[in-house]
Amino acid sequence: MTINRRLGVLHGVRVLEIGHFVAAPFAARILADLGADVIKVEPPGGDPVRQWGEQIDGKSLWWSVHGRNKRCITLNLKTERAQSIVHALAAQCDVLIENFRPGQIDKLGLSPETLRRDRPDLIIAHISGYGQSGPYRDRAAFGAIGEAIGGLRHLTNHRPGASDLPPVRAGVSIGDSISGLYAVIGILAALWRREGRDGDRSAHTIDVALTESVLSLMEGMLPEYGALAKIKQPTGGGIATAAPSDAYPTADGGWVLIAANSEPLFAKLMGLMGREELVGAQGFRGNQERVENVAAMDALIADWTRSYGTSALIDKLTQADIPNSKVYTAADCASDPQYLHRGMIQSVDDPAFDGPVTHVGIVPRIDGENGVRWPGPPLGAHTREVLHELLAMNDAAIDALRADGVV
Amino acid sequence: MTINRRLGVLHGVRVLEIGHFVAAPFAARILADLGADVIKVEPPGGDPVRQWGEQIDGKSLWWSVHGRNKRCITLNLKTERAQSIVHALAAQCDVLIENFRPGQIDKLGLSPETLRRDRPDLIIAHISGYGQSGPYRDRAAFGAIGEAIGGLRHLTNHRPGASDLPPVRAGVSIGDSISGLYAVIGILAALWRREGRDGDRSAHTIDVALTESVLSLMEGMLPEYGALAKIKQPTGGGIATAAPSDAYPTADGGWVLIAANSEPLFAKLMGLMGREELVGAQGFRGNQERVENVAAMDALIADWTRSYGTSALIDKLTQADIPNSKVYTAADCASDPQYLHRGMIQSVDDPAFDGPVTHVGIVPRIDGENGVRWPGPPLGAHTREVLHELLAMNDAAIDALRADGVV
Repeated sequence: MTINRRLGVLHGVRVLEIGHFVAAPFAARILADLGADVIKVEPPGGDPVRQWGEQIDGKSLWWSVHGRNKRCITLNLKTERAQSIVHALAAQCDVLIENFRPGQIDKLGLSPETLRRDRPDLIIAHISGYGQSGPYRDRAAFGAIGEAIGGLRHLTNHRPGASDLPPVRAGVSIGDSISGLYAVIGILAALWRREGRDGDRSAHTIDVALTESVLSLMEGMLPEYGALAKIKQPTGGGIATAAPSDAYPTADGGWVLIAANSEPLFAKLMGLMGREELVGAQGFRGNQERVENVAAMDALIADWTRSYGTSALIDKLTQADIPNSKVYTAADCASDPQYLHRGMIQSVDDPAFDGPVTHVGIVPRIDGENGVRWPGPPLGAHTREVLHELLAMNDAAIDALRADGVV
Repeated sequence: MTINRRLGVLHGVRVLEIGHFVAAPFAARILADLGADVIKVEPPGGDPVRQWGEQIDGKSLWWSVHGRNKRCITLNLKTERAQSIVHALAAQCDVLIENFRPGQIDKLGLSPETLRRDRPDLIIAHISGYGQSGPYRDRAAFGAIGEAIGGLRHLTNHRPGASDLPPVRAGVSIGDSISGLYAVIGILAALWRREGRDGDRSAHTIDVALTESVLSLMEGMLPEYGALAKIKQPTGGGIATAAPSDAYPTADGGWVLIAANSEPLFAKLMGLMGREELVGAQGFRGNQERVENVAAMDALIADWTRSYGTSALIDKLTQADIPNSKVYTAADCASDPQYLHRGMIQSVDDPAFDGPVTHVGIVPRIDGENGVRWPGPPLGAHTREVLHELLAMNDAAIDALRADGVV
């Protein structure tokens, strides 16, 4: 059969999102980006992200991206009628994704058992700070704390002794995003088990913890500690096992990444700096000596880079074929020729702002497709459409629900 | 039908990995963790990660985790016979994943077109620094540079003016891992499109770029720049829109995260510090004033936290019900009761080290399963088994390939 590719490879999958903040909504957005029909349930007050970050007329710009490609309905889940509607909707969905505190959906009458009474093969994905079981399961999930418990915060710092400032956080909720990506993986794997070759036609449950999602990226940290009692330490802007490789300052206050840790690249860099005598000199002989001598060597390189403006330095390094890059800001990303060529910077018309909003393109790119269907919708924009289409409710019935504060 | 759950939900999916370093092998490991039969092709010298990080007798501890649950075969892809073997293996695989520079597999006689001659519905996932098209496609992919171009490095830094040190890098290859997760999402979505309800029985191609994977996590950065020309700036250990929330120093040189940015939590914290007079005082009235006054306020809090050892401080904060956490090191992760309860810290017997190696458990957890099947195998450990099982080669034929340097 022919698929309408413009609809995305997940066309035909329907997802009910009872999510808020970042992790579950981000996961559902990835599914929506790939073509799933995502129905996002919000309380009548809306997901708080609608007011997060920079706003225009009280409307968050981030929401335009975070809510895109979904259908948004409101339901006051404290009412029994709304809970019945969730049951009826879930019966027509392949997947339910939620990120309440563990156990909270059961208290709302939406336990997996009751939901699966109407839809026995419903795939349910839970995202939480610490997981659905264990002694910490009821603790509040703060992204920053989850990243710390996952081991990431300790490693995101200058080398021990280099600074009195605290370890830093990436300026984004990276732990939430990573757990969202893992939830998508769990959902899609479960869909394949349910419906793929030799599918089992059964329900599956995904239990993603923010802490565990971060911990799973820590590479050699656990095995090295287990075998050698070695506690992995941060390395600032550098890499523990290769030097020089770091961000170096420029005359205009910018930073340029230089990766010149192979012997030929190091020799090229020293040549460019007019310091050929350091090639093969003590403290610079081979990667291992340079790693041990990294502070002194980086200071030498920084003295040199500081005498050039950012673009002059990049030109010099590029001409010498030494891997380098500006440390991109939002402005650099938005004007990068490669991103523009690949449709990764898109102008999406958003009626909420009476004009185009800059969106990131769709990742992962499948079969070359990269089209955003629509921006984050206004609160409750699809309540009537969804209740009519999926539950065959007429306008009068929906008006009654609205009058009673159910939707 | 009944599934043997111990085999994982992806039991029945076969993946050919022609990957090296981090991104493609990490993606394939996630698939293997979930039960796919992953056949990893290595050159006779092996994937360099076999020697990365801390080692015992020349064997990387990280490899025990990075290579786990896969079958490892060697093939010298510069020989035509090895290329024919890849064709024959791919014909029996659902998915091929690779992270050579774009175009390199074509030069090895392994173009998508020729591979699909024998397996018309082969799903192919490419991971590269900048993607398979566009002006930068041929540039070398360095993880650190990809993270910078994705916008992450700029945001992983102290607040502007707070430090002369460069922006930092997480001590792990986070850009590679994130692109690996996206590749898994692409592969599973394509499998569902191929074989799920209304499946199209067709090939699909996934094109994941490290830079784009990072950029996709930048939340409001692009829309805020596009609409307001606002360039998102780093916020050190804090959060741009909430205070106090940061890591604070302790008497024994540790760091404790404190998230007390709501009014009741801030009042509790000031009470604990004996500074009740600051609640409602100028510069501390509400989150907005605290965000503007964050440097002075954090200095006050740090003066107080520095007078306690790490565990005494944590006890005090926990008793007062103020969200907090130690900044976990490897040692903290390995002994955390929640991780231990959920099987996230596992002892996996590894013959390469004559004993157990500490592994992270499997993420995402599906249907409660969390068992590692086997640790990263020795180089070529499964060459004979795979060539026999999939291509019906006998021992003499395999010995001949070995004698000729093909395997």
